[in-house]
Amino acid sequence: MPYHFVQRGIMETAKRMINEEIAMKLDIQKLSLAASEPIRIADLGCSCGPNTILAIQNILEALKRKFQTHPTPEFQVFFNDQVSNDFNSLFASLPELGRQYYAACVPGSFHGRLFPTASLHFVYSSCALNWLSKVPKEVVDKTDPAWNQGRIHYTGAPKEVFEAYSDQFAKDIGSFLQARVKELAPSGLMALVIPAVPDMISHPHITTGSEFELVGSCLMDMAKMGIVSEARIDTFNLPIYYTYPKELRQIIEGNGCFSIERMDMLNIPKQHIAMPDLRQRTVYIRAALEALIEKHFGKKIIDQLFEMYSRKLSESPIFLKPENQKTTAIFVLLKPI
Amino acid sequence: MPYHFVQRGIMETAKRMINEEIAMKLDIQKLSLAASEPIRIADLGCSCGPNTILAIQNILEALKRKFQTHPTPEFQVFFNDQVSNDFNSLFASLPELGRQYYAACVPGSFHGRLFPTASLHFVYSSCALNWLSKVPKEVVDKTDPAWNQGRIHYTGAPKEVFEAYSDQFAKDIGSFLQARVKELAPSGLMALVIPAVPDMISHPHITTGSEFELVGSCLMDMAKMGIVSEARIDTFNLPIYYTYPKELRQIIEGNGCFSIERMDMLNIPKQHIAMPDLRQRTVYIRAALEALIEKHFGKKIIDQLFEMYSRKLSESPIFLKPENQKTTAIFVLLKPI
Repeated sequence: MPYHFVQRGIMETAKRMINEEIAMKLDIQKLSLAASEPIRIADLGCSCGPNTILAIQNILEALKRKFQTHPTPEFQVFFNDQVSNDFNSLFASLPELGRQYYAACVPGSFHGRLFPTASLHFVYSSCALNWLSKVPKEVVDKTDPAWNQGRIHYTGAPKEVFEAYSDQFAKDIGSFLQARVKELAPSGLMALVIPAVPDMISHPHITTGSEFELVGSCLMDMAKMGIVSEARIDTFNLPIYYTYPKELRQIIEGNGCFSIERMDMLNIPKQHIAMPDLRQRTVYIRAALEALIEKHFGKKIIDQLFEMYSRKLSESPIFLKPENQKTTAIFVLLKPI
Repeated sequence: MPYHFVQRGIMETAKRMINEEIAMKLDIQKLSLAASEPIRIADLGCSCGPNTILAIQNILEALKRKFQTHPTPEFQVFFNDQVSNDFNSLFASLPELGRQYYAACVPGSFHGRLFPTASLHFVYSSCALNWLSKVPKEVVDKTDPAWNQGRIHYTGAPKEVFEAYSDQFAKDIGSFLQARVKELAPSGLMALVIPAVPDMISHPHITTGSEFELVGSCLMDMAKMGIVSEARIDTFNLPIYYTYPKELRQIIEGNGCFSIERMDMLNIPKQHIAMPDLRQRTVYIRAALEALIEKHFGKKIIDQLFEMYSRKLSESPIFLKPENQKTTAIFVLLKPI
C-alpha cells in the first residue's frame, strides 16, 4: 500500500485527534491492572515505509504522557501487514537507538485473527481499510448486473457495480471488527483512519474523472490499439473502496462490537499545493497501482500505460482543478462494547 | 545462518530431549496461573528456512500434550533473527492453514533485550549461539599476541587466538543469558542447542584440517596468486566458535541466572552418510560462509575460491575420513533461578 505521500498528510492530520483521544479516553487505571504486563500496540496494514514508525512514535508519546504520574510500563509494538509486504525494508528502517519499545511484526490479513485474545491495548490502522480483501465477485461475472465491463473501478460505472463494492466493504469491515474485538483488552482503544469521500457525494459511483477511471480509460485505449485484450480488462478491477461517514457509522453500529467514541472527517490541507506537478502525480498513482496491474497484465505494458496516463491527466479536469481532488479520510475512535 | 542441512539433523536429535524436558519440567500449573494469557514461545536465531517451523511445531505438540487435561491455551510464537535476516522468505513459508499459533517476528540481536519482562514461557535457540556477536578485536590487532595473521579462524592458530574467541563467546553467552532471564516468566524454560566439540578435544585451536582452515588456506593461495591481498585476509575472521560442555557449563554457572536442568552431547548420526559427496560439501560450506566472504572480499572471488576449496577438500583428510567429522552439539535445558 504505497501511498506514502498522501498517507503522511493524513497521518499528520489524525495525530492531534489521536493525542486528544488517548488523553481523554484511555483508562490507564484499568490498563495497569496487570502491572507486569506491557502495553501492546498494533499498527494494522502498516506497509513498509517510515510513516508507520512516525505514527507509532506519536501514539507512544501520547501514552507516555498518560503515565506521567505512574511508573512507565514497557511497550511492545506489533507491525502488521500482508505476508507479501516488504518486512525486510520495514525492519531496516526501524530506529536501533533510542527506540522505546519492543518491536515485532505479524504477517497476515487483518480480516482474520492475528493476535491472542485480549492481548492488545491500542490498535491503529491508517489508509489500509480502503483496500478490500478481494474484488467483489459480481463485477467479474458476465451474467451479473454488476459486471463491470470496460472499467477497472466503480467510478463512472452503473450503480450495481458500486453496490457490489459497497457490500464487500461492509463484509470486510465486519470481519475486521469481529477479529479486533476479541484481540483488544476490554479497556483498549482502536483508532482507524480510512480514506473516504464526504457524505454529500451522494452517488460516489458516478463521480467522474477519478484517477482510477483515467487509468481504466488508458487500458481501454490500449485494447483498441491491440496491446491488451478487452476480455483481460473486464476481469481486472481495483480492490479499493472509498466509504463515507454515514455508511461507515451504519456498518460499525450494525456490527455491535464497538461503540463509536468519535468520528470526524479529516480534510487534508494544501493537497493541491503538496502534489502539484504532472510527474509527481503520475509517480504517485503508478506506485499505488503498479503491482496490481503488473500481476494481471504483465510487466511489459506498464511504462506505456503510465505515459498515456500522464498525457491524459494533463488534459483532464482532475489535474486542471486539483483543489477538487482534496484527499479526505474518516477518523474514527472505537471502544469494545 | 544457512546450515539448514546439518541443522535438520541436529534438530531431529534434539527433538526427543525437548519432548522429555517439556513433559517432565514444565510446570503448567504455574504457567496457567494467568489463565487469560497465551503461552509465548520464542525461537532465537531462527534463520529463514523451514527448520524453525518444524522445530516450533514439535515444541507446540509437546506443550499441547501437557495441557491434555486442562483447557488448551492460545499460543503465540516469536521468530527472532538479525535485522538482516530474510523475514520475507520466512513468512512465505509459514503454513497458512492449520497453524495453531499466532506468529510474530522480532528483528534484532539476541545479545540484547528483545521482549518485555517475563513475557516468554519457552525459549528455543538452535545452531545460533555458535555465531559470535563480533570477531574478537584482538585477532585483527597487529600489536596483539592474538593477531591471527594468514588465517580466518582459530583452528590451526596459536592458543592466544583461540583464547580471544573463547573470551568473546563467554561474553556473548553472558549477555544472552542476562537478557533472557529478564524476558522469561519465572516458570518458563529455555532449550539451547549449540554446535560444539566434545570435551576430550582438549586443544580445539590446534585441531587441524577443519573446513574453515581449508577456506583460509585457499584465500592465502589466492593472495600468492595476487588475487587478494594478504592484509585483507588478516582483517578477515569468521565469527564462529565451537564451545565444549565443560566450558559452557562453567559460563552458565558463573553467570548465575539459570540452573542447568540437563546438559547432553548430541551426536548427529550418519553424518558421513548424509553428506557424502564433494559437491554437496562444497555447497554446504559455501552457503554458510558466502555472505561473510562476499562482504569482505567482494563478489568476484567467490566462484574461484570455492573451486579451489573443492579441489583441496578432495585431497584432504576431512573428506577422505568423513567419519571423523561428526557434527556434535550440546543440548542444554535451563530454568531461571
